Amino acid sequence: MTFRPLHDRILVERIEAEEKTRGGIIIPDTAKEKPQEGRVISVGTGTVSDKGDVRPLDVKAGDKILFGKWSGTEVKLEGKDLLIMKESDVMGVIEG
Amino acid sequence: MTFRPLHDRILVERIEAEEKTRGGIIIPDTAKEKPQEGRVISVGTGTVSDKGDVRPLDVKAGDKILFGKWSGTEVKLEGKDLLIMKESDVMGVIEG
Amino acid sequence: MTFRPLHDRILVERIEAEEKTRGGIIIPDTAKEKPQEGRVISVGTGTVSDKGDVRPLDVKAGDKILFGKWSGTEVKLEGKDLLIMKESDVMGVIEG
Amino acid sequence: MTFRPLHDRILVERIEAEEKTRGGIIIPDTAKEKPQEGRVISVGTGTVSDKGDVRPLDVKAGDKILFGKWSGTEVKLEGKDLLIMKESDVMGVIEG
Amino acid sequence: MTFRPLHDRILVERIEAEEKTRGGIIIPDTAKEKPQEGRVISVGTGTVSDKGDVRPLDVKAGDKILFGKWSGTEVKLEGKDLLIMKESDVMGVIEG
Amino acid sequence: MTFRPLHDRILVERIEAEEKTRGGIIIPDTAKEKPQEGRVISVGTGTVSDKGDVRPLDVKAGDKILFGKWSGTEVKLEGKDLLIMKESDVMGVIEG
Amino acid sequence: MTFRPLHDRILVERIEAEEKTRGGIIIPDTAKEKPQEGRVISVGTGTVSDKGDVRPLDVKAGDKILFGKWSGTEVKLEGKDLLIMKESDVMGVIEG
Repeated sequence: MTFRPLHDRILVERIEAEEKTRGGIIIPDTAKEKPQEGRVISVGTGTVSDKGDVRPLDVKAGDKILFGKWSGTEVKLEGKDLLIMKESDVMGVIEG
Repeated sequence: MTFRPLHDRILVERIEAEEKTRGGIIIPDTAKEKPQEGRVISVGTGTVSDKGDVRPLDVKAGDKILFGKWSGTEVKLEGKDLLIMKESDVMGVIEG
Repeated sequence: MTFRPLHDRILVERIEAEEKTRGGIIIPDTAKEKPQEGRVISVGTGTVSDKGDVRPLDVKAGDKILFGKWSGTEVKLEGKDLLIMKESDVMGVIEG
Repeated sequence: MTFRPLHDRILVERIEAEEKTRGGIIIPDTAKEKPQEGRVISVGTGTVSDKGDVRPLDVKAGDKILFGKWSGTEVKLEGKDLLIMKESDVMGVIEG
Repeated sequence: MTFRPLHDRILVERIEAEEKTRGGIIIPDTAKEKPQEGRVISVGTGTVSDKGDVRPLDVKAGDKILFGKWSGTEVKLEGKDLLIMKESDVMGVIEG
Repeated sequence: MTFRPLHDRILVERIEAEEKTRGGIIIPDTAKEKPQEGRVISVGTGTVSDKGDVRPLDVKAGDKILFGKWSGTEVKLEGKDLLIMKESDVMGVIEG
Repeated sequence: MTFRPLHDRILVERIEAEEKTRGGIIIPDTAKEKPQEGRVISVGTGTVSDKGDVRPLDVKAGDKILFGKWSGTEVKLEGKDLLIMKESDVMGVIEG
């Protein structure tokens, strides 16, 4: 079973941040309202412009991305907790 | 009798999620505010752009889709409880 | 006397739903907040695009349509209670 | 003295509905929140599109129109109580 | 000293309505929430369209106009109380 | 050090109105909620249209302008209290 | 590891204002709600227009910029506290 996001949506698997700092101290919840990391699983065909043209997305499957903590909608597919969001919710790609 | 949705609207039959987990435990209601699955029954002719062009929809009759729990308007046609929603309410298509 | 709706407006006669189910039980009011059926009496010349072009409407006089319970404005013309609404308030056409 | 409405505005004289039904019974105020009839006195040169083109209006001086009870701005010109409204406030034209 | 309004703005001098009716009775304030008359003093170069074109305004210096009682921003220039408003606040031009 | 405003922004130095009338009477604060005068120090390259074209601004460095009392953002550059605002906040230019 | 901002977003390192005035007096917090200075670290490929064209950004890596105190989203990358914001949040560039 595969999931094909529509238009400018992407399917993302959240990468849980490690709950400890390097020194091993547990970070309290309030200190973590930062953007979240995720891995793109699949992407839609692209954004539809006002003129009806389709512009392919700039992120692709496999990209490691940053997105807002509250972005996207949670969905369970084949037992995994995933997120569906719009490409515009993605702040950028972490490379290398 | 058939129903022809207008423009970018689609007619959808909700697929009720099984109320139990694999182990047979009943999931309480609050745990289910996830996107819903549905089967597309019929689709409109397409989205009308600002220029007046019509772009055919990306979902088609028979597609199994995910959509937000509160999307669409409930309608009873020939005794069946169906939903009319816009294609933009569809998050993606479940294939295979 | 005839009424010519302007632009993307249509003139609609509401089709009252039967107040009983097949088995003859009267449905209480709260169970009826569903889309309403209507018959199109006359239609405007079309939607005016941003570029000034006119796109003829997709519904035509005689069509049996579904629309939201609260759509449109009530108007009395020649003693009949009718509705004036925009084509975008129409969810779809019931055919056959 | 004449009044030239600007762009997509029109000058309208309200036609007071008869306060009685055919049988002569006086209608209480609350029963009259229906669209109002009016006679178009003069019209602007047209709607200006985003591209700067001017599209002439679809209503013309002399037309008998329906408009929402609360549409337009009241204005007194040469002792007459008139209304200035936009063409988009006009629901349609009563002909014949 | 002259004032050059920018783009689609115009500089207007309010024409105070006479406070009396023809019969000499003073109109109380609440009866005067009608559009106001004014004389156009100077106008901007025009409205800038989305495409970057400039469309000259339809009102010109010297025009006697009607505008909403609360339109525009009051400004004192060379001791005179004037108004700066957008052309879209002008309802029409009184001619003759 | 120079400051280059981006796009349709301009850098403005407020011209403090004289706190006295010609007769030397001090105006209380509430009587001064009028547009403010300022001197343009530097301007951005222009407004970017939807099509991606850049339209140069209509105000230029040195212009004496009127703007709304609450327009713009205060900024301190090289010890001076200045304002950064958008050209659309400028009501007009005082010439001569 | 590098971070590639998407579209019209930029990655910025905040430049902490000196907490003292030249005379060495500590400025209380409330006196500092002014635009903030920052250094651009990396920029997206550009703004996507309605037509689907990409317009490169006007700021580039290395630019010293002014932005609103509350602009952008805080993000921690390789141990540094950085900001991701849109180019439209940038007021201008400090040069020389």
